[in-house]
Amino acid sequence: MPHISLGNDAPGIVSLLIYRPETAKPLCGLAETLLRGPSSLTPGERELIASYVSELNDCRFCSDSHAAFAAAQLPEGMTLVDQVRADPRAAPVSAKLGALLRIAAAVQRGGKNVCAQDVEAAREAGASDQEIHDVVLLAAAFCMFNRYVDGLATTLPDDPSGYAGAAEAIVNAGYAALAG
Amino acid sequence: MPHISLGNDAPGIVSLLIYRPETAKPLCGLAETLLRGPSSLTPGERELIASYVSELNDCRFCSDSHAAFAAAQLPEGMTLVDQVRADPRAAPVSAKLGALLRIAAAVQRGGKNVCAQDVEAAREAGASDQEIHDVVLLAAAFCMFNRYVDGLATTLPDDPSGYAGAAEAIVNAGYAALAG
Repeated sequence: MPHISLGNDAPGIVSLLIYRPETAKPLCGLAETLLRGPSSLTPGERELIASYVSELNDCRFCSDSHAAFAAAQLPEGMTLVDQVRADPRAAPVSAKLGALLRIAAAVQRGGKNVCAQDVEAAREAGASDQEIHDVVLLAAAFCMFNRYVDGLATTLPDDPSGYAGAAEAIVNAGYAALAG
Repeated sequence: MPHISLGNDAPGIVSLLIYRPETAKPLCGLAETLLRGPSSLTPGERELIASYVSELNDCRFCSDSHAAFAAAQLPEGMTLVDQVRADPRAAPVSAKLGALLRIAAAVQRGGKNVCAQDVEAAREAGASDQEIHDVVLLAAAFCMFNRYVDGLATTLPDDPSGYAGAAEAIVNAGYAALAG
C-alpha cells in the first residue's frame, strides 16, 4: 500500500504521475529525451540500461516495465534483457554496450565510482563522449525514478503481463503521453 | 578534469547543461518545479533539503551551491544550513522539517528505506501527503543530479564565493534560465 493517498489505483510511477501533474510533466519530458530522443544509442539499448540500473536498485516495477520496453525494441527480445539483468559480463552484448553498462553500474553505486579507466574502456570500445554523457545521466535518472517509485511504496500491477501492453503504448506514443 | 570534453569551463552541472541542451531543458524544468514551483514548503526549505541530500551523497558542488541558494532564502541563513548538514537532529528546525529531512535521508540510502513510521512521524508533525510526496521526489532528484555531476567528474569553481552570486541569479530568474 502506498505511503500516501494517491487517489488512483494505477501501479508504480503511473500512480505518481497522475497524483502530481506538475512534476509529471518534466519527469516525462526527461524520460522521453533520455530514452527516445535523438541519440546514437537505440531506444532498445537505452531501455536495457534503464532496466539493468533498476535491477541494481532492486526496483521491481521499473526493472520489469523497462525490461518489457527494451524487449519490444531489441531484436534479441527478453532473452538478452534477462541475461544482462542476471550478469552483464556474461551477456552477449557488444564491447561498447558492455563498457557502457559498467559505467551505468558505477553511477548506480555513486557518481564518484565512475573512474577514468571505465570511461577510457568505453571510448576504446567505440563509445563517443556524448554516449558516455547520456549513459551517466540515464543511470543517474533511474536512481531517481527507482527511489521515487519505492520511496512512496507504490504498488505492482496485479498482472505482470500488462507490461507488454504498456510497452506497445510507449513504443507508439512515447513517455510524454504519460504526463496527461 | 571532466571525464569527457565538455567544450566549456563552467563548473559543476552548469557545464553539463551547456554541453547537452536537449537534456538541460527537462532537467531545469524539474529543478524549477521541485525547488521553486507552487508548494507549501518554502523555496528556502526545499533548497535546504537539496543541500542536505547532496551532502549525504558527498557531492561538493551541489551541496555548496544549494547551501548558498538555501541561505539566501532562509531567515536563519547559512548558520542553519551548516547545522542541518552537520547534524539535522541537533539543528533548530521545526518538528515537521526534521521529519521531512529524515525521509529525505532514507530516500538517499534507497527508496525501500522509507518506512511507514517515518511517514507517520512526518504526518504527526503536520506534514501533508503532498509535502511527503514532494520531499521524496526532491531527495530522489538530487540522487540523480549528484550522480550526474560527479559521474562525469565536473569541476568545482575556482572561487567558492561565486555560489552567492549564483544564488542571486536563481532567486531572481529561476532554474529555467539555466537551460539557455
